[in-house]
Amino acid sequence: MAVRPTTDQKARIRREAALLFARNGYRGTGVQELSEAVGLGRGALYHHIGSKEDLLFEIVTLHVLDVVDDARAAAAARLPPEETVRELSRLTMATIVDHLPEWTVFFRDLNALAPPRRREALAARKAFEEVWLGVLARGAREGAFRPLDPVVAKGILGMHNWSHVWMTSGGRLPADEIARQFSDVIIGGIRA
Amino acid sequence: MAVRPTTDQKARIRREAALLFARNGYRGTGVQELSEAVGLGRGALYHHIGSKEDLLFEIVTLHVLDVVDDARAAAAARLPPEETVRELSRLTMATIVDHLPEWTVFFRDLNALAPPRRREALAARKAFEEVWLGVLARGAREGAFRPLDPVVAKGILGMHNWSHVWMTSGGRLPADEIARQFSDVIIGGIRA
Repeated sequence: MAVRPTTDQKARIRREAALLFARNGYRGTGVQELSEAVGLGRGALYHHIGSKEDLLFEIVTLHVLDVVDDARAAAAARLPPEETVRELSRLTMATIVDHLPEWTVFFRDLNALAPPRRREALAARKAFEEVWLGVLARGAREGAFRPLDPVVAKGILGMHNWSHVWMTSGGRLPADEIARQFSDVIIGGIRA
Repeated sequence: MAVRPTTDQKARIRREAALLFARNGYRGTGVQELSEAVGLGRGALYHHIGSKEDLLFEIVTLHVLDVVDDARAAAAARLPPEETVRELSRLTMATIVDHLPEWTVFFRDLNALAPPRRREALAARKAFEEVWLGVLARGAREGAFRPLDPVVAKGILGMHNWSHVWMTSGGRLPADEIARQFSDVIIGGIRA
């Protein structure tokens, strides 16, 4: 095998680690196991990853920052509120399906991060929730949605986030169809 | 302190273990830590629990079997489908709020169980989902709900189950009010 550039190696290690962490938990995965999975000795592995917790932090932040940006852009487009809901649902399901191991680790192993990094990851999760709260509030102001308790946003996020538990890659429904089914329920349920 | 009967000791150990597992993960909690939390030496602790995995299995099965029974009874009562949805939502939120650490461990650490026990716990989760699927199908047959893809049941379960992530004991809303908010969205979203 040709020598790969460092960035490719790093991405490969991150992907293998996400798969192992998703299957056995962050704390249930040893550095030795990761070392065998990527075919690198411990020294070479540590050279690439810094520490196991550095790797966890990279895995959990890799996609959440992108999806927050995408969600903010969708909200800023000022589509009719129902369309914004559909778009947020679509982009949430798309990233979970496309990066299922990474999101599984995000949803389950955040508490293995030391407090400063945990706070950073939680802030990103909060920012995503704020986008949902914003569109629900705008919908209510514009008369499209009934006024909603903020717990409804948590329920909507739960519908989507919980999918990491039952989702299988190449499952029965594509991400867009799941988002459509969820959006139909949500919009019917919050309409003014 | 007076000597407690064994059953009380066991319940106390189970509760402390659930709190520790919920906070630090099953794999992030050592027997030494649990031993200190309950004030028993390792020998006495093992006498009560058998093994750490026995304890995990007891914690995750403690409430799921009850809630499956309660859900089946609610479905068997043959209330109008909308009322059955409200009742299922209520009893789901009630058990999560009342037993938050145990449910957190159930939702997050099932994969730390060895396969036969993991299958048993997953079968209980599946049985609970079947009750939801049954009431959605009955509602569609009786003309109360539109015909729904089974993924909608997964979304509904997700709304509820995800609450273990944001729920705090003594939080802003009581379980019944969260269930009412969720049921309003669900029923509005699935009505024929």
